[in-house]
Amino acid sequence: MSIMHQGLMNIRYSKSDSFITIDSLRGSLEDQENFIVFSLIERARYPYNYPAYDPSYLGLKNYSLVEAFVRDTEAIEANFGRYQNPEELPFFPDYKAFPLVPPFKFSQILYPPASSINVSRTIWDMYFNKLLPLIAIEGDDGNYQQAAASDLICLQALSKRIHYGRFVAEVKFRNTPSDYLSAIHAKDSETLTRLVTSKTVEETVTERVKKKAEVFGQNVTLREASKDGNETTKYKVDPSVVSNLYGEWVIPLTKQVEVNYLLHRLD
Amino acid sequence: MSIMHQGLMNIRYSKSDSFITIDSLRGSLEDQENFIVFSLIERARYPYNYPAYDPSYLGLKNYSLVEAFVRDTEAIEANFGRYQNPEELPFFPDYKAFPLVPPFKFSQILYPPASSINVSRTIWDMYFNKLLPLIAIEGDDGNYQQAAASDLICLQALSKRIHYGRFVAEVKFRNTPSDYLSAIHAKDSETLTRLVTSKTVEETVTERVKKKAEVFGQNVTLREASKDGNETTKYKVDPSVVSNLYGEWVIPLTKQVEVNYLLHRLD
Repeated sequence: MSIMHQGLMNIRYSKSDSFITIDSLRGSLEDQENFIVFSLIERARYPYNYPAYDPSYLGLKNYSLVEAFVRDTEAIEANFGRYQNPEELPFFPDYKAFPLVPPFKFSQILYPPASSINVSRTIWDMYFNKLLPLIAIEGDDGNYQQAAASDLICLQALSKRIHYGRFVAEVKFRNTPSDYLSAIHAKDSETLTRLVTSKTVEETVTERVKKKAEVFGQNVTLREASKDGNETTKYKVDPSVVSNLYGEWVIPLTKQVEVNYLLHRLD
Repeated sequence: MSIMHQGLMNIRYSKSDSFITIDSLRGSLEDQENFIVFSLIERARYPYNYPAYDPSYLGLKNYSLVEAFVRDTEAIEANFGRYQNPEELPFFPDYKAFPLVPPFKFSQILYPPASSINVSRTIWDMYFNKLLPLIAIEGDDGNYQQAAASDLICLQALSKRIHYGRFVAEVKFRNTPSDYLSAIHAKDSETLTRLVTSKTVEETVTERVKKKAEVFGQNVTLREASKDGNETTKYKVDPSVVSNLYGEWVIPLTKQVEVNYLLHRLD
């Protein structure tokens, strides 16, 4: 089970922040991939369920069912302390919180003036407009709350992953501040984007998430899978959709978070 | 994606209940296994987090954080229609519901006097007392809400699976009512248990879930896994814990649901 508790988990137990490394962050990001793939497969259990996304369906201030559900759920999550953890960001932070739990001392790793970088709205729009139609088949089975709850799990997994860019940027900056200083002073996003880009790492990640979609989305039976190029394998979610999600959205948005974080790293 | 929409999904689209077969129910049960395994792996991301289970931690009417969180969450789920679907059962049905969604016409397959069979309390106790300590490592990382939310997902997946026994029993009864009549009239649970038992099916299921825990809980990398008997493979959740969960709890409780359902099938 050790791999599950790499990354920030261990960091929290440590007495100082000096154990945060790019490798420990990558371990956590790799682990988060599993849960992103799981959550997409879970959402694909339900058909699209159009009424859940129709702003007029509930007759509630133009909130769709999914938005109303997410708002109510996040308010409860806040009461139970979820957003005390700087890794977690709500999509609708304008809830009225009635905190039930005592504060927990999470490690404060981020540089405060830069920590509020947030692309939640972009993730929300990308998920509902681009991704969801690719993973849910057409249809309406009445399980609107279940579909909305699965949507929220996907959204939270993606948001956590993408906003990890803040931690990655912080560690990169601490390792070699001199690499970034002039570009930060010049507010030069283009150079910063180049500095946080590693094409080989990006290619490894998109290939690996594709493989994860194949492994986790296969139909597991006790019979040995036939390996003779018989192209009938059906996956629960198309693996190329998952690698495109990473290549076109997750990685670029993570880099956008990194760059925006760095731009405020000397504020 | 076809396997994902087997089972009751398709049944709902059908004009009559005549398409429900043991095979279509088994397809759904097989699919549910994936999500049970996923949800256990997800819970194993967090350490045990003792304060979430300490009834005195919140100072709330002796509710532990997890119980308070589940109660609040189920009330919201009810508002958004989750429990209209006869496949879904809340753990704490005494919520005050303020339904926001119009009724949806779910197929009513179950025989009403038998449909209220419920082993939720047993599932709750089994999960927290037996299962959770086997999948979560010791520790406290402050992510209590996240752990509680993962617990609820595990509980709901297990409850849905186990209470599917009601659908299985209904279909078995409809197929050959004469097999069951005398035992039902005699309230003979022992004979009914024998009638709903298939050792070969049970062995297949426990073996298959073990394999699923191996497949879904492996560390997927782009390197080929070494197949040379090198016993260093670490799984996110111990596969034998998952097969024992099925052998000792899920299957026996499902049969208990089937038998109790049948006992009320002629009320």
